[in-house]
Amino acid sequence: VARAARLPSLPAVTDLARNAVEVLPKGELERKLALGRPLRVKLGVDPTSPDIHLGHTVVLGKLREFQDAGHKVVLIIGDFTARVGDPSGRSVLRPMITPEEIGANARTYHEQAMKVLRDDPESLEVHRNSEWLDMPTAQFLTLARVPTVAQILERDDFARRFASGQPISVLETLYPLLQGYDSVAVRADIELGGTDQTFNLMLGRDIQKAYGQPEQAILTLPLLESWDGQKMSKSYNNYVGVSDPPEEQYGRTMRVSDQLMRDWYKLLLSREPPDDPYVAKRALAHDIVARYHGEDAAARAEAHFDRTARREAPTDVPEASFSDDPVHLPAVLGDAFGVSRSEVRRQIAQGGVAVDDEVVTEPDVEAARVDGRVVRMGKRRYVRLRRAA
Amino acid sequence: VARAARLPSLPAVTDLARNAVEVLPKGELERKLALGRPLRVKLGVDPTSPDIHLGHTVVLGKLREFQDAGHKVVLIIGDFTARVGDPSGRSVLRPMITPEEIGANARTYHEQAMKVLRDDPESLEVHRNSEWLDMPTAQFLTLARVPTVAQILERDDFARRFASGQPISVLETLYPLLQGYDSVAVRADIELGGTDQTFNLMLGRDIQKAYGQPEQAILTLPLLESWDGQKMSKSYNNYVGVSDPPEEQYGRTMRVSDQLMRDWYKLLLSREPPDDPYVAKRALAHDIVARYHGEDAAARAEAHFDRTARREAPTDVPEASFSDDPVHLPAVLGDAFGVSRSEVRRQIAQGGVAVDDEVVTEPDVEAARVDGRVVRMGKRRYVRLRRAA
Repeated sequence: VARAARLPSLPAVTDLARNAVEVLPKGELERKLALGRPLRVKLGVDPTSPDIHLGHTVVLGKLREFQDAGHKVVLIIGDFTARVGDPSGRSVLRPMITPEEIGANARTYHEQAMKVLRDDPESLEVHRNSEWLDMPTAQFLTLARVPTVAQILERDDFARRFASGQPISVLETLYPLLQGYDSVAVRADIELGGTDQTFNLMLGRDIQKAYGQPEQAILTLPLLESWDGQKMSKSYNNYVGVSDPPEEQYGRTMRVSDQLMRDWYKLLLSREPPDDPYVAKRALAHDIVARYHGEDAAARAEAHFDRTARREAPTDVPEASFSDDPVHLPAVLGDAFGVSRSEVRRQIAQGGVAVDDEVVTEPDVEAARVDGRVVRMGKRRYVRLRRAA
Repeated sequence: VARAARLPSLPAVTDLARNAVEVLPKGELERKLALGRPLRVKLGVDPTSPDIHLGHTVVLGKLREFQDAGHKVVLIIGDFTARVGDPSGRSVLRPMITPEEIGANARTYHEQAMKVLRDDPESLEVHRNSEWLDMPTAQFLTLARVPTVAQILERDDFARRFASGQPISVLETLYPLLQGYDSVAVRADIELGGTDQTFNLMLGRDIQKAYGQPEQAILTLPLLESWDGQKMSKSYNNYVGVSDPPEEQYGRTMRVSDQLMRDWYKLLLSREPPDDPYVAKRALAHDIVARYHGEDAAARAEAHFDRTARREAPTDVPEASFSDDPVHLPAVLGDAFGVSRSEVRRQIAQGGVAVDDEVVTEPDVEAARVDGRVVRMGKRRYVRLRRAA
């Protein structure tokens, strides 16, 4: 009862599991929470690029919820695992990323993560995994006794590549062992990760068990999809970095489609969007900038966006009308610009069609989304669409 | 031509390849020998048991031939790889063999190997692979970039176990990498091994290549089969140790069948056996003891064998005659001892039938082998067989 007093704000499990895709194994999170002590909640991130982006903040935000509920977050900056990285197609002797880059990234990762986490030693520990992974090889080989090859090859991406004869280097199969050993080193009670991490997080349980530790619960969160339909990632250049300037954050956020916007609201703002999609999107962009740069910066970014959008579109934009809802762009734009429907389709496929600077990815769009707005195709063609009276 | 003068006794390739099962890749041994300098010829042995046995001496004998031809033998005592060992079915944290045992074995291995090799610094280097394998994990992981999982799973035993769903620990897949790195560390020109090592030796080539070195030629030699039909090995207790006492070496050698004896002559003495099988076997046992303990010890072991064989057999052995050649033991012994033929077969299968202390493994034996000799079945039944007049 002293404990309950210490953790008065401990929320129900259902709150902490909100937005989770999986909480495994069944009942384990509840059992951990029932221990009645602050739990050690692990997240590992490899500093392979300089920026933490909104995709990372989905999991960081969940960590923050654990902090606020009285638990201890253990953030692991994977400076050692970043050195291992993804070796596909690289020369043996050339590192993928220099130790200097990793060191610099590790520093900024820590800083950037603090934009979401509470920086208070009671509820936060930050480690670099070189603290324990820089072990002698003999010790690492002990770790390699734990899993079997068949078990490792069950991981989705490995199974697919193995079945189709694509090479998997032995090194890649070792990466999950390192990540699992991190859980041993920090005695994790819970580990969080994206849904692409489910296998690695579960393997961490086997490794903890082999080292005589209680096995962690795991909680996976959705990967944030970006405007191009891919997982938000440095590799795809489809990300909004938490340290990007306000104008860039605002402008890039405005590129998401109405459909994706619901996810962004849920995963980043933990609320439902307003009914009007354009209002909703502006509010989303505003709130993201405000979170990382403050209200003033958000207001300035918004003004900048409006100014830029106006400047970019020519002043004498011709108008065209439509009557259907949804609007079939190949027909409407084909007529407006005097080109074939297939040309319009091709432009859409290449990301060349935009409504108010937001790229359109489907040929059919809701009437509300385009009514009264300027649609651009390619670099020079503009038309303002209006619903036929 | 100065070089040719330095290596006047360089034998033809065909001599050095004698008894080899494979010399790979085709033409590589010739190319190495054509370099005209002393080659670095590697053998790795893991000191997992205290004894070097006759099985090991097949490869050691070949190394000696390379020494005698002016090349440099690089003997690697695998004290690090012995620590890794075969992890199947063991607990993660319990070592298979203690570092003290490995240290002790490593010392006796060195001594025992010197019973076959010439101990002269011009033609011999001895290393322990802990000298270079005790590296930081980051360096080991670089090594793990070289092979793919599919490549490792091509190894015969792995392929079989993987296909049949038997577990292969990740550690086992790493063992060949360590052995391959030994080749890099000593800059091997040639590596020798038993036929069960073909995969590992070939992988050593890939690893040398990844580290920018010329790739070694490999030469595999037959595994010495012992009296129980298995590869000679500590695990099967079917071995003749080079440090075993003379009497034991003699007695155990006398257990090999006539058929196996030809292989032992070829692989251990490099000559053909005399025609008479019993004479041949005594000469084999004699020569093996003489090699490791000297002529006097061999003579004493021989006398001891005769004395013991006489003492063990009762003095009043009944006699029985046979007329066929080969002699069908189930018939002859069944009649002599008043038991069924299938009982005799069963005894043969269990190793319970012996001629002068040498176990019989087949139901039909040459007449010359049993004529005038005492045949024992089980512990108490004896009969002396004689060819019917």
